[in-house]
Amino acid sequence: MVGLDGDVHAVPGAQRRARAALSFLAEPGEPVLGALLRCCDPATIVAAVSSGSDPRAALPAAGRGVPGLARAVERWQARLGRLPTDSRLAGWERAGIRLACPGDPEWPTQLDVLGDARPLVLWLQGSADLRFACLRSVSVVGARAATGYGEHVATELAAALAERGWAVVSGGAYGIDSCAHRGALGAGGITVAVLASGLGYGYPRGHRELFAAVAGHGVLVSEWPPDRAPTRPGFLVRNRVIAALSCGTVVVEAALRSGALSTARHARDLCRPLMAVPGPVTSTQSAGCHEIIREWGAVCVTGAQDVIENVSPSGDGLGPPRRGPAAPRDSLDPVTRAVLEAVPSRGGSGPAAIAVTAGVDLDTAIRCLGALAAAGFAERCVRGWRIRKGA
Amino acid sequence: MVGLDGDVHAVPGAQRRARAALSFLAEPGEPVLGALLRCCDPATIVAAVSSGSDPRAALPAAGRGVPGLARAVERWQARLGRLPTDSRLAGWERAGIRLACPGDPEWPTQLDVLGDARPLVLWLQGSADLRFACLRSVSVVGARAATGYGEHVATELAAALAERGWAVVSGGAYGIDSCAHRGALGAGGITVAVLASGLGYGYPRGHRELFAAVAGHGVLVSEWPPDRAPTRPGFLVRNRVIAALSCGTVVVEAALRSGALSTARHARDLCRPLMAVPGPVTSTQSAGCHEIIREWGAVCVTGAQDVIENVSPSGDGLGPPRRGPAAPRDSLDPVTRAVLEAVPSRGGSGPAAIAVTAGVDLDTAIRCLGALAAAGFAERCVRGWRIRKGA
Repeated sequence: MVGLDGDVHAVPGAQRRARAALSFLAEPGEPVLGALLRCCDPATIVAAVSSGSDPRAALPAAGRGVPGLARAVERWQARLGRLPTDSRLAGWERAGIRLACPGDPEWPTQLDVLGDARPLVLWLQGSADLRFACLRSVSVVGARAATGYGEHVATELAAALAERGWAVVSGGAYGIDSCAHRGALGAGGITVAVLASGLGYGYPRGHRELFAAVAGHGVLVSEWPPDRAPTRPGFLVRNRVIAALSCGTVVVEAALRSGALSTARHARDLCRPLMAVPGPVTSTQSAGCHEIIREWGAVCVTGAQDVIENVSPSGDGLGPPRRGPAAPRDSLDPVTRAVLEAVPSRGGSGPAAIAVTAGVDLDTAIRCLGALAAAGFAERCVRGWRIRKGA
Repeated sequence: MVGLDGDVHAVPGAQRRARAALSFLAEPGEPVLGALLRCCDPATIVAAVSSGSDPRAALPAAGRGVPGLARAVERWQARLGRLPTDSRLAGWERAGIRLACPGDPEWPTQLDVLGDARPLVLWLQGSADLRFACLRSVSVVGARAATGYGEHVATELAAALAERGWAVVSGGAYGIDSCAHRGALGAGGITVAVLASGLGYGYPRGHRELFAAVAGHGVLVSEWPPDRAPTRPGFLVRNRVIAALSCGTVVVEAALRSGALSTARHARDLCRPLMAVPGPVTSTQSAGCHEIIREWGAVCVTGAQDVIENVSPSGDGLGPPRRGPAAPRDSLDPVTRAVLEAVPSRGGSGPAAIAVTAGVDLDTAIRCLGALAAAGFAERCVRGWRIRKGA
């Protein structure tokens, strides 16, 4: 299964395989599964669901008491036919799709605040390391039916954030989302698109080229398996991930009942900085922004400087823009430096090859690569690991 | 002196005359005079300043200790030549200019929050009763160099406030101020223009017709004697009165260092509701509004309903618009009702004539007229008192 036979992951293969399988059976954010995972490991759940007879008998006693379990298991069993064939998985892997599980070096631990609604897995595609990109990121979201004003502001804001070394997270939709991604890419920055469809499906279809560009310089993210088409409720479920991944959320344009306000609500409920860009009071597409400034205490922001001041630890926003690694190579310990020396600047190498070149064992190489990604020295690529541009 | 020989005032003639005289000698908001008035009555101060020899000897001991007194008295003495002739005063009175002093029925007691900076007197011109108008009023202020957007919003906001029975207070300047006055007048409402020049001077001169319209349906206000030209510092001094007169202040458009922000600062410092209308972040004329929303906690408002909810006691803003008197005639006590019956609906009558018609003594008539004005039944006019339109 995708990324399961590789050796770059910290999570044991059986558990990864089980989480991946569950992502074909359950819907993201299902509270029954979240509660179940608190007392059962994923492999036990998959084994129970696949067992055919009453699966609850195969679960530990604590798991059997989860409310709503019987109906949830029925739903999951009805989807057993969706589990992908090996050739399908191999195809996705060839397309550069990889899997991140809680505990992996690339897993963004800030998602843990979602509790039982934490994603089961994340399917990823792209050159950026998701965890590292999101350490310093802002979500820029808004209406699909954006005005020229909103598109201008979103593009400029994302470009200015990218120029100052902040990654821009958004939902890949038409309107404000696409301007946010394009603004960041245009400024040579990193952008993260969290989709409500599988990565092989890539909704909306009209953004095929945009998604290819995002994968080239950032990362595409989905909780759904790569072949899944979007559903209407999926967009709202997805929004919690946009809010939880980044250091703060900015709404650029939103009507009073825009879906972008659901992302804003998640940011507020997670106590992440929530910001909104004001606009003409004569524009219905700014009415949602004004509403959340007035009623929810969203901060009124007019540009990247305001945003950075709101998402930075005190004083950080006032410093010069950060580019590349936060620390010099010299500050690395000798073993990590040896691993870094073994990472190619072009192409890419797998961790096993890197371990051999660096003269360390595989576990050490994997640990050091995670640290190097988090510090901005190395990044993932389709062929394994490479030196991050500008590092 | 203007309004001093009339009998409609609650303040003894000598004190009124002295306050009026001081308004020709001192500048509004002078802290020395404010401190002096805490321990000396106005007539004593005028007598001392006019005495020629060291005036401080003529003051009570407490007054002599006020810091800065000697230089202030010198300044006041240097202006003794500015005291107007009787014919000049008579001319202003014929033009309908009247004087309001603290303690008068028309005095807006909400100005008392200004402490030592409370206006010495207010020179007034117009049909509305200042105190009654301001009981339910909002200040709408902003840039002189307004954009089409700001002019549109100010006009619509003022009209909507007027339609719901709220008076609109502003500064009579070009740009947002004039739109606020015109919006209120266009909706048949009451508007109050607080000028930084004397009422006979009427700055800016290009607003002569606007000021005539304000006097016809509202009231013109100035702390300066009618013949005084404006000075640059005067505009900032005047702004405290705009903020203190009304129940709350809305900034419609203001650049980062606009004078309108001085009015906003006064409203904030007086703990009056402070609001701002957002605009495009691409417009420098909205930058001051966004700044005070973000940094000062001004409420982001998009229309009259938002404003009214912010300035009303809980729930009041949600009721139907209030027009005319708050209470029915039947609720008046018999004496007040008799006085009301004696007030003409056209033209106007002096309090003495009204007292005779009503069969009450002059003091009673004056007291009842003040109550009738505050309740919205009667209003002042050039020829005395008349029934308020719509009452």
